[in-house]
Amino acid sequence: MSYNKKFMLEAIRVANENIENQGGPFGAVIVKDGKIIASSGNSVTTDNDPTAHAEVNTIRKACKQLGTFNLEGCEIYSSCEPCPMCLSAIYWAHIDKLYYATTKDDAASIGFDDSFIYHELTLKPEQRRVQAEQHDRDIALEPFQTWRTKTDKTEY
Amino acid sequence: MSYNKKFMLEAIRVANENIENQGGPFGAVIVKDGKIIASSGNSVTTDNDPTAHAEVNTIRKACKQLGTFNLEGCEIYSSCEPCPMCLSAIYWAHIDKLYYATTKDDAASIGFDDSFIYHELTLKPEQRRVQAEQHDRDIALEPFQTWRTKTDKTEY
Repeated sequence: MSYNKKFMLEAIRVANENIENQGGPFGAVIVKDGKIIASSGNSVTTDNDPTAHAEVNTIRKACKQLGTFNLEGCEIYSSCEPCPMCLSAIYWAHIDKLYYATTKDDAASIGFDDSFIYHELTLKPEQRRVQAEQHDRDIALEPFQTWRTKTDKTEY
Repeated sequence: MSYNKKFMLEAIRVANENIENQGGPFGAVIVKDGKIIASSGNSVTTDNDPTAHAEVNTIRKACKQLGTFNLEGCEIYSSCEPCPMCLSAIYWAHIDKLYYATTKDDAASIGFDDSFIYHELTLKPEQRRVQAEQHDRDIALEPFQTWRTKTDKTEY
């Protein structure tokens, strides 16, 4: 479906409401077959959950609503361009299309790290601010071998 | 703290156990002051939650355990190199250090999209597989203005 302004206005309304409820200034809605099936603001500080961005929350609610981990056929409207965590979650959820309003640079201008994390992801692990070390790959290949040969697995 | 093999072995044990419980072949633990404070496998298919990767689940559990959205002073051990969603979550959680075992290419070899999503994130929004469109930025700047001037906000 093409862009429908009323869904973006709802995502923005949720963002405004969320600030009143002591959450972050972000909102999102997920639409299927022309209807909103889930919406949420950001609840990082109110839920003590750093992953509880508006898009992640809305994906989780939509999946619960539909009883699936696959949101093919759905579109997400976000009041702000998703951070890399949320954009990746959109990929993992197989959402068809993303509409956003403000940008990651707008988010940076009010103190959110989205642009910084986008940049970090382009670096090699050893160049990133969060130090990363690889160890014991040989041992950790075992669950992958088990998975490869498992016949009754649910793939995603 | 420096790498401690016993924590990685526990993350791998969780991954193996998780496969037996019909989850994906991934496990993670979070360590603070030399002790494991949270661990989890991947529960995407068992919880119908595409964001329920091992690292995200473990971050959520650790935050609940400590009553905070900020995991400074913690380290995460993951049986596999985090996907972009999980790596970004590690940044948002302010975890100090990451230890991983298998790589995103190992994950790709058993059918997981980590490498593909890493590549997509380097592209401009209009070049990505998930189509993205920007609309109505001017309206969506309103909650950001409210946030900027709010005096009793909880920043993160």
